[in-house]
Amino acid sequence: MIVAGIDIGGTNTVLGIVNRNGDILSEDKLFTPAYPLVDDFVSAVAATISSLVSGGNGIEIKGIGIGAPNANYYTGNIELAPNLLWKGVVPLSGMVREKTGLPVIMTNDANAAALGEMIFGAAKGMKDFIILTLGTGLGSGIVINGEVVYGHTGFAGEIGHLIVDPGGRECGCGRKGCLETYASATGLVRTVLHLFSEMRDESSLRNIAASSISSRKIAEAASKGDPIAIRAIDFTAEILALGIVNSVVFSSPRAVFIFGGLAQAGEILLGPVRKYVDKNIEQVFRGTVEILPSGLKESNAAVLGAAALAWKNLEK
Amino acid sequence: MIVAGIDIGGTNTVLGIVNRNGDILSEDKLFTPAYPLVDDFVSAVAATISSLVSGGNGIEIKGIGIGAPNANYYTGNIELAPNLLWKGVVPLSGMVREKTGLPVIMTNDANAAALGEMIFGAAKGMKDFIILTLGTGLGSGIVINGEVVYGHTGFAGEIGHLIVDPGGRECGCGRKGCLETYASATGLVRTVLHLFSEMRDESSLRNIAASSISSRKIAEAASKGDPIAIRAIDFTAEILALGIVNSVVFSSPRAVFIFGGLAQAGEILLGPVRKYVDKNIEQVFRGTVEILPSGLKESNAAVLGAAALAWKNLEK
Repeated sequence: MIVAGIDIGGTNTVLGIVNRNGDILSEDKLFTPAYPLVDDFVSAVAATISSLVSGGNGIEIKGIGIGAPNANYYTGNIELAPNLLWKGVVPLSGMVREKTGLPVIMTNDANAAALGEMIFGAAKGMKDFIILTLGTGLGSGIVINGEVVYGHTGFAGEIGHLIVDPGGRECGCGRKGCLETYASATGLVRTVLHLFSEMRDESSLRNIAASSISSRKIAEAASKGDPIAIRAIDFTAEILALGIVNSVVFSSPRAVFIFGGLAQAGEILLGPVRKYVDKNIEQVFRGTVEILPSGLKESNAAVLGAAALAWKNLEK
Repeated sequence: MIVAGIDIGGTNTVLGIVNRNGDILSEDKLFTPAYPLVDDFVSAVAATISSLVSGGNGIEIKGIGIGAPNANYYTGNIELAPNLLWKGVVPLSGMVREKTGLPVIMTNDANAAALGEMIFGAAKGMKDFIILTLGTGLGSGIVINGEVVYGHTGFAGEIGHLIVDPGGRECGCGRKGCLETYASATGLVRTVLHLFSEMRDESSLRNIAASSISSRKIAEAASKGDPIAIRAIDFTAEILALGIVNSVVFSSPRAVFIFGGLAQAGEILLGPVRKYVDKNIEQVFRGTVEILPSGLKESNAAVLGAAALAWKNLEK
């Protein structure tokens, strides 16, 4: 048995055919902005899936899972997604179901990542965990008792929008001081820019235009002993740890997985995160939660997450 | 059919016989510190339940629910409770089960309150809600998809220990800036004391020793137009709203119920809380969550919560 996992992004939509072991049997992609009309997009998705399974010796596809920004698990709608061309509320799940005749289930990318981790990754066998995806923003998926938390609205699990510094940095959500304005690739860059004004130390990063500084360049500078880069990563780890500590009092997970672009900094980030979590966690939870890297490869994770959603839906 | 609900507190242990409609058919209490040995306490509990049902025309008791501080739902242990005489880890649930031969289930007081609200109170029919009990501290019970969140450890749902002001007020948990150091009866008093130093306004509260100022006196002063009391309640509401807004991004509840001593201030507190929640909530959740008073009477709620736990356990 096989399913299709679809990861819809503002730039690319990646489609993969995935078996129950998490092997991606075939994969293709579409350039999302090439389809300003959602009807055309749905047709292209259906055609791509057909061509991906056509060489599959007749193995039947059982269902489709979709990870997409601003996707509502309950309604199957994409709602007001700022990075997609389709405006307003798009009933994508229903449209793909109608076109393909297959069961279709959809959630946002971070929730899909959590399911991918649970079914194919490092959270196998865990019933209570959280995944944080540190990219441009901070996405999160929360699993409690083996189920992703969707909440009353379908939009639960927005740890990136915990306010950790009231009145602090401006956030894309229109508020101030959200965790993701500090603990994300973008947040790390903002911290370096702030430290340029606070610290007098020399730094190779001062020779790059602000708009060209990236989390990767900061991690590289830190590995060479750059004091501003090192301080910025330490501060980012401290705020991320605050977000983790505040999540732990809520749901007491067994593990928090760190994923996404910024997570590729590896132990240079995770080491200090663990130190600050241990220092600042409520005593009753001390030693009960592990901070771990994701068990999935960055390049496969989105499609595997969407496929995991399809498998979870079929096995219900 | 009937169950027994037992609310264990540092001062009193209240025992009630409760039917499925939430009627307390009979009730009695024990003075908890009169039993320094837990064996004696368990014997007294069993004897009290027997005497409470003895006039009950042979109606059989089906189970026992216990709400207790620092109770672990999974293990049935009370662990390191600072306000009880029994030190260390006490396997209370098992001891009561052995003594009475009945199914016994135990959780902490705030989780029991959440179940009481769901089964007998204002959360009937709700699957996603949070209850906050504002007393000496801030206790919380989180319900997601119709189930109380216990987490990996059994101690989940500690919203009172969200750090909302890193480096802020000293908390009983040994850390600083926890929500309950601001949003609780004790926190409100601390805020008045702080405002004595910040504001120049006259206040009747300045004529009372700091150790005698209570949340009730502050609410009374506020209702008479006392500027420091009014400012203190507004500030408390603002921080409580921050805790609520940060909880909503996590689990997206349909309602947050406010309960306990400080909640008796009523609309004088809830009005500003709603205003600040509406102002500071992430846009996707605006208008999706109600801030409501508990539907249970303060005097009955603890026993009803424990009884609700017993009913929930029997109906599993």
